[in-house]
Order: sequence, then C-alpha cells, then structure tokens
Amino acid sequence: MSIKINHLKGFLQVLERAKAVASDKNDDIKSGVLIQAKGTSLSIRGMDENISLEIQSNELTGATKETSFLVPASFFQELMKNLPKGDVKLVKKESKNEVNIVVGKSQFNIATMNGEDYPVVDVLQEGNSFKIDGTLFSEGLSAVKHATSENETRPILTGVHIVSNGQYLTLIATDSHRLAAKAVPLLQEATELKNTVLPKKSIDELIQILSNVKECEMIIHENRMTIKTDNLTFTTRLLEGSYPDITKLIPNDFECQSKVNREELIRACDRAKISLKPDKKKVAKFHFKNSELPALDLIFTTSISSGKEELFLADLEGEITINLDVVYLKDSLQSLTTRDVLIQFAGVMKPVLIKPVSEDAAQFALVLPVR
Amino acid sequence: MSIKINHLKGFLQVLERAKAVASDKNDDIKSGVLIQAKGTSLSIRGMDENISLEIQSNELTGATKETSFLVPASFFQELMKNLPKGDVKLVKKESKNEVNIVVGKSQFNIATMNGEDYPVVDVLQEGNSFKIDGTLFSEGLSAVKHATSENETRPILTGVHIVSNGQYLTLIATDSHRLAAKAVPLLQEATELKNTVLPKKSIDELIQILSNVKECEMIIHENRMTIKTDNLTFTTRLLEGSYPDITKLIPNDFECQSKVNREELIRACDRAKISLKPDKKKVAKFHFKNSELPALDLIFTTSISSGKEELFLADLEGEITINLDVVYLKDSLQSLTTRDVLIQFAGVMKPVLIKPVSEDAAQFALVLPVR
Repeated sequence: MSIKINHLKGFLQVLERAKAVASDKNDDIKSGVLIQAKGTSLSIRGMDENISLEIQSNELTGATKETSFLVPASFFQELMKNLPKGDVKLVKKESKNEVNIVVGKSQFNIATMNGEDYPVVDVLQEGNSFKIDGTLFSEGLSAVKHATSENETRPILTGVHIVSNGQYLTLIATDSHRLAAKAVPLLQEATELKNTVLPKKSIDELIQILSNVKECEMIIHENRMTIKTDNLTFTTRLLEGSYPDITKLIPNDFECQSKVNREELIRACDRAKISLKPDKKKVAKFHFKNSELPALDLIFTTSISSGKEELFLADLEGEITINLDVVYLKDSLQSLTTRDVLIQFAGVMKPVLIKPVSEDAAQFALVLPVR
Repeated sequence: MSIKINHLKGFLQVLERAKAVASDKNDDIKSGVLIQAKGTSLSIRGMDENISLEIQSNELTGATKETSFLVPASFFQELMKNLPKGDVKLVKKESKNEVNIVVGKSQFNIATMNGEDYPVVDVLQEGNSFKIDGTLFSEGLSAVKHATSENETRPILTGVHIVSNGQYLTLIATDSHRLAAKAVPLLQEATELKNTVLPKKSIDELIQILSNVKECEMIIHENRMTIKTDNLTFTTRLLEGSYPDITKLIPNDFECQSKVNREELIRACDRAKISLKPDKKKVAKFHFKNSELPALDLIFTTSISSGKEELFLADLEGEITINLDVVYLKDSLQSLTTRDVLIQFAGVMKPVLIKPVSEDAAQFALVLPVR
C-alpha cells in the first residue's frame, strides 16, 4: 500500500502544523502524527494532552488503497523536509510495522507506532457558536499575545481571554503590568460570551492555521473549544479559573495626551533598553514637555551611563513625567500598526493608554507605570 | 575635546574587531577599548590576557585635539551600533570622567575607565619572520579550524599548528578523530618553523582581520607571535606544549579510491545525520561497491529507523565497506572547495584521506573510521 506525494511542499505545510500540535514527550503515543490517505484525499492528525488538530487535503497525494499509519512526528517531519530530489513515495510495510520513504534509489524506513491506540477526539458539534473571519482572528491573537504572562503562578494570565457582546469578539491579554486588547467583528450576530480563556499553545497554533482562512466556526462548550474551517478541525481545552475584570483598569480622564510617531518611539525604546543594560534595568523616565517645541524627553541612568533622547511631538496636550518599562512600551507599540499612536495619561501612577490613530480604533494597550 | 565621526560604518567595523578581542570579564580593565584620536588619525585598541590588537585608521574621524579614552567595549559598541540617524560626535568630559555620544538632540553618556592603567603591550620587533598573503592565511585558518579539538583535556589540540619548510606555512588541526591541513605559500623564502600553535580565540580573530589583507608580516619569538599589516598590530601568546607528529598518520598505499561529487555527499551526510538522530548516533556504514554501475551506498540504522542512500560514482578503484562519522566527514568536505573530491582508503581501520580534485592540491583532510 503506497502513497504518492504529488505536492511535497503542500504536504510539508500540513505535516508541519500537525507536528507543532503533537506532544513532545517521546514515550507518549501522542508524539506521533496519524497519516490517513484514500485516493487523492489525505488527513493528517496531531494532538497532545490539551489540543487536537486534524487537517484534510485533496490532490496533495494519491493512494492506491486506503492507508493509515502513525509515525513519530518530529522525526518523520525532519526526514521529509530533507529528502533528496525526486518523486517521493510512502510505502507501508504491514508485515514489518514500518513505513518506507522512497526517493529514487534512496530509502528511509521508520518504525510505525500502533495507530489503533491513537486517541479519538470528541469534536464539539454543539455549544455557543460564532462565525468569524479566520485571518482577523489570527491577527487579533498576534496583536495581544505579547501581553500574556510567562509566569505560571497565575496560570489564567498565561492565556488570552475571549469575550463577546454578540457583535464582536474581544481578545484580551494581561500579565498585570501591561494589557492588550483587540476586537474582531463577528460574521453573524451571536450570543454573549464570558470567561473563555485560550491557553498559550493553542494561541500560537491558531495564529498559524487561521492566518489565511476566510471563514471559520468557533464552538464553545464548558471547558472546550472547537474551531472548524473547510479543511481543518481544531479542538482545545480552555484554561479554568476566572479571568480578572479589566474594565475598571481603563482610565477615562486624562491630564496629558499626545500623538507620537510609532516607529520613532520604538527605536528610541530600543536604544533606551541598550543604554540601561549595564544595570539590567528596563525603566526610563518619560517627560512629555509642552515648551515652545513640544517634545518627549526619554531619560535613562545607570551606574556607568546616562542619556537623553528628544523626540518632537506634533500634538501635545498637558504635560507629564512618568516612569515606564521601555520593553513593555515597545511591545505595545509593535502590536499596533498605524503610523501614529495616541498616548494618554491619567496620572503618574495610572495605567497609560495607547491607541492607534485611525478611524477603526478597535484596539488598545495599557502599560502600568513604575514607581 | 571632541571627535567627529566622519564614517560611522568604518568606525563601527574597527570598533567591532577591537571589541571581539577585549576581555569579557566586566571587572577587568581589559574589558575596555582604548580610543585614541589625533587630527584625522584614529587608533582603537582591545586586549585580553593573551591577545592584543591595535587598529589604526585615517579619515574615519576628525579630532579637535589629541584625545584618548577607555570605555567598556561591549556597551560602547552596542550603543554606537544603534544610534539615531544624524551626525555623531564623541565628546570627552575631563571633569566628569565621561564620554558623551551626541547625535542631534540625543545624548548618551558613558563613564570612562582609567586609561592610564590600560596595559602597554610588548609588540615583537625581532624573531622568526614570515611574509604572507593575509587573505590566503585567513582562508587557510578557516579551512582547518573545524578540526580543532573542543576538549580542554589536551589543550594543545584546541589550537592550529603552524609549521614551515621555508617555502610554505602549513596549517594543521586535529582533535585525534579527524585532521585538516592546508599549505599557504610564503611571499619570501624564510627559515623553518616548528611547534607554533595558535590558540582558538586568535584563530577566530585572525580569520576576521586578515580576510582582506594583501601582505602581512608574522614574527614569532619564544611563546608569542605578532602580526603586522599596514594598519594593524596583533600580538598573541602561543599555546605551550608539543604538538603531535601527524606525518605517520597519513596513509600512502590505498586499497580503494574514488572521486565523489562533494555537494552530493555533503547532502547525503546531512540526511544520514537526521536519520541517525533517534539514537543520537552519528556513524553510518559507507559501502563503495564496484558493481556494474559503481556506487556508494550509505547505510544507517537506529532502534526505530533504517535507510540507504545510493550515490553514483564516476571513478572507483577497488571496493570497501567502512564506518564513518557523518558529521566529521561532512565538516571535512565543507572545508574543501572543489566540485569533486578524491577519497582514498588504506583499510577499514586506517585514516581516510580526502583531497580536492585540482592541480593545486595544497590541502587535505583525514577522517578516522569507527569500529
């Protein structure tokens, strides 16, 4: 029983995604990828203890008979990626429990794992359902991901919180020092949604697999979520616990605000970061000064260095001097995409609000000042 | 007292080299770079406990007065590399023991170290002297470097051995599993040379600083070497101890030999390396078989995989089956540059000799087989 690979590049792309999901515990059956082929239709599955992904494709392969085998994900993928040039065939040797990758006169053989033990996954068919644009959802996750916590002491903060008012999905991430939020419009009106928190590995994987998907359906039931598109099914466990209420964090009254060129401020933050290195500090003083020429002074000091950058401001109201983490500020600026951003200050110890300067302000970031 | 940087890119290149030499121990005065400027001439020095480098340049800078300062190498270099756009000026503030980097309205200040404590180096003026083409010497070091030992138990093998018959410098490296040698012609007839062993950091640095140098002088005296070019002086301590005699390792009588396409064999070694990963092995069986179509079979087996690659051979004499480390073989092949290489076998337990197929065979590699 053999599978002819007709489009190696496409096959590798699908395999790469399934491998990314597969468990990295070598002794676990979930460290395999399950390949199933019938005629020109192909299915590749990968899973770990929380996530399961099945991708279906057509025309990438041609199988003489219905064939299925489970092989170690990483090893199979690395071999497939580095084959010599030529037509590639996968031959399943039932008698020997192995699969042969045959290219011209070269042959690579891999022992198969027991496919019958590979878990079946309960894909959600019913629950809260949302129709979304996959690309926008992927972009939304990319934009807020940097603000998730890397600290496992409050696991809920390592995820992205998804809420909905029926019109939008709002994606929120915070590590309690900074926060990022972005709204993604729903393609159909839906019910409200609260306390749905996507774990880290699922965030990474959804960013990848949905980046070029026009429409997908998201179904949420209890602590699980299934996302379906034309050719893939992704199911993940959700993080348990309640996500903190962030609405009270967002300031409304501002004593100072300014438009800033985003790229310029990113580069200045980079230089401040380098300047602060000798003391392994990350905090600089930001002085928005409303003198003849409104400017932002960025001031940094270490035991062996000091410095000041001056950036001109086009549009400053009020004045403020505030201490900010330059890495957090830079991350927030990089997650936005407009040329200019609006920075708003409610006080020296209040969260700083950063928004794109554009009609469509469905995104914002908060950075907490440092004392 | 200030220095205007007229050519930032050139300045950064010189600074990068001096930084690479400087000690990475932060509390050592040798972790600084010493900048000296007078008119349009500039000197930058870096050193550690074994190496000293001084590079002189003209027209990169302009100094109002004779100026000199010592600053932390890595920090100064990273700041200089990331400055905002604009004209750059270095201003020395005698009263404050600091140097200011001034670009437009931005300014970065670094505390200077005490330049008077920076050691003076005894540059060799007399000793065994050799005139060489810097580019060829740099290429020679690059070609043999991979075969130096990473194991400090026999420190002498971490270096490159330089010998001369008065006509050539021969560069030799071996970690006792594989060996690389390359001869570099002298520009003038000279004395014989033995037991000169260049330490690792000096190898790396000389590869960089001599890569575009037409002519340089190498002076060796006791356990030190100085290399001088038009604009730089490099002095290094040499490794102490006696380098093993490698002449008896090189086989003369061969029972099998073949020409092989170098790139093809490199790629096959790469795939064998991936195929052997599950067991963390690196040894494959190489079978040069003189059948109807002469071919090399590369055979590899692990606990969960096996495989065979077949490469056609144009020019095979004799037959052999031998076990080789695919990484060592690949490194050797990569250090050569010709399209085809000649591989010669003196027996299944004798070193394998690999040579470029070209008129100018001033280079060879040995790889020891594995039992």
